[in-house]
Amino acid sequence: MHAIVIREPGGPEVLTWEEAPDPRPAPGEVVIDVAASAVNRADLLQRQGFYNPPPGASPHPGLECSGVIAEVGSDVEGFKAGDEVCALLAGGGYAERVAVPWQQVMPVPEGVSLTDAAALPEVASTVWSNVFMLARLRRAETLLVHGGASGIGTMAIQLAKAFGSRVIVTAGSDEKLARCLELGADEGVNYRTEDFSDKVRADVILDIIGGKYLANNIKALNTGGRLVVIGLQGGTKGELNLGALLAKRAAVHGTTLRARPVDEKGVIVRGVVENVWPLVAAGAIRPVVHSTVPMAEAARAHQVLESGEHFGKILLVR
Amino acid sequence: MHAIVIREPGGPEVLTWEEAPDPRPAPGEVVIDVAASAVNRADLLQRQGFYNPPPGASPHPGLECSGVIAEVGSDVEGFKAGDEVCALLAGGGYAERVAVPWQQVMPVPEGVSLTDAAALPEVASTVWSNVFMLARLRRAETLLVHGGASGIGTMAIQLAKAFGSRVIVTAGSDEKLARCLELGADEGVNYRTEDFSDKVRADVILDIIGGKYLANNIKALNTGGRLVVIGLQGGTKGELNLGALLAKRAAVHGTTLRARPVDEKGVIVRGVVENVWPLVAAGAIRPVVHSTVPMAEAARAHQVLESGEHFGKILLVR
Repeated sequence: MHAIVIREPGGPEVLTWEEAPDPRPAPGEVVIDVAASAVNRADLLQRQGFYNPPPGASPHPGLECSGVIAEVGSDVEGFKAGDEVCALLAGGGYAERVAVPWQQVMPVPEGVSLTDAAALPEVASTVWSNVFMLARLRRAETLLVHGGASGIGTMAIQLAKAFGSRVIVTAGSDEKLARCLELGADEGVNYRTEDFSDKVRADVILDIIGGKYLANNIKALNTGGRLVVIGLQGGTKGELNLGALLAKRAAVHGTTLRARPVDEKGVIVRGVVENVWPLVAAGAIRPVVHSTVPMAEAARAHQVLESGEHFGKILLVR
Repeated sequence: MHAIVIREPGGPEVLTWEEAPDPRPAPGEVVIDVAASAVNRADLLQRQGFYNPPPGASPHPGLECSGVIAEVGSDVEGFKAGDEVCALLAGGGYAERVAVPWQQVMPVPEGVSLTDAAALPEVASTVWSNVFMLARLRRAETLLVHGGASGIGTMAIQLAKAFGSRVIVTAGSDEKLARCLELGADEGVNYRTEDFSDKVRADVILDIIGGKYLANNIKALNTGGRLVVIGLQGGTKGELNLGALLAKRAAVHGTTLRARPVDEKGVIVRGVVENVWPLVAAGAIRPVVHSTVPMAEAARAHQVLESGEHFGKILLVR
């Protein structure tokens, strides 16, 4: 098969489409004939040499894909060759084939094309596990999402609205904020011109910035609030005001999806299929695709993500 | 009646035993004829003017008491005049009588004297709500308790051991550590001679220090660990390593008991009666009383707590 290989740590140009060994299904795994993958910010870090795949994962980048099951290993439950699926991967999505534990595989939700289904596994799993399973966002509570125009942001807006919550987003342009409002967000803050902590109070905050936003995120939490940090684009360290945390009876959670054990990913994936897929099938949630790039030109897709001009997901197609 | 009045913010000497208005039961409240109260660190802060009682609470200090119900207001469930009880208070325990919502009242557990029962409400509610309800300590997990010789520490050791967990404590002398081990702790760290973060890894940390320990507490957390900060004796701010928090998929919770709404306190108190009182009745957990001081001499009790030489609770008796 072919796969995107990271020749050496570096810029987008190190991504090259090369012959690579065909993956074989280990016990509990299926091999998917990949129709599409999608670009995640973690892929940029992996390309730069800052985020090595966890032990046992494919060396190729790509944390999600859609496609057709080509081979089924032993001890696999609920899937067979020929099934149209999408999957949460620990790596290897930028390839013609990828092996993945069956627990991380999902049916393509009704009403979504096989290609577009590649836009869903990471964002649906991230939002479901963090906003709902971990932070337990409740109806009528307010969710603040930093990076409302990102793939995660566009899913968080739709899912939280579908569950009856109020959603506030930040983004870097008024145009992006307008599109977030079209998707259902109740309020938007342009972080280039306004300080969100001056005007927003939230019960749950989903944050991809980290250190730089820590103080303002704590300031923006309501009593009983939960800050969930899933990215560190603004640095790894920040001053934590524990006095405010105690007074608000609040919490700061840090988490990542990729390094979790298969069983934990399986619990999340089953939660997505049970709770998110029916909303997709009903038309309440749709994959938001910014653009579609041939997989062999993954370098160009990385340039688009790095430019920050996208709204939603960038897909890589065969 | 008489009560301890804080004449003005200051040292122990501002605590004076004076005539004060008799409390009357509001709807949902009972009035307790106080047998004993106990000293908490929050009382020192209140005496110094740093921790005002929440709205509606008694102006007198005292966050817990034991005694006999003297009067029952309207809409009270499950209690009647003459019942021997102990209670979690928002204030007013240093007095001959105190009014309290019935949800915060508990029977005196079997096998404990009416006086000693005053040593239990705060520590049992604090440990149950934070270590078990919030941080969900599981069997076979490790709990690290800072201040193992404190009232909270002595309860945390006993309760976590009774539920099958491993318990490590810090304290400021080898003598205190030896007493913690006698109570059931598996390991002790003398914080004057050792850095706990060099040798301890824990799933749950119950911390009363705050800022000064934040970095080392994060370092000492296992994957999936939960740090619960309930005191700020070492400062209100600290640098939080979010990179480590994400890599460990860990959480920092800050919380206090006193300011919570009555309904939330009621849930905690019911949990204590259901889960902790049977262990007290069975002899697996006992109140640890350092000394007993006449209530009118509360100033002396505060001096003992401030000296840091105590092991367990200091009671104030009528």
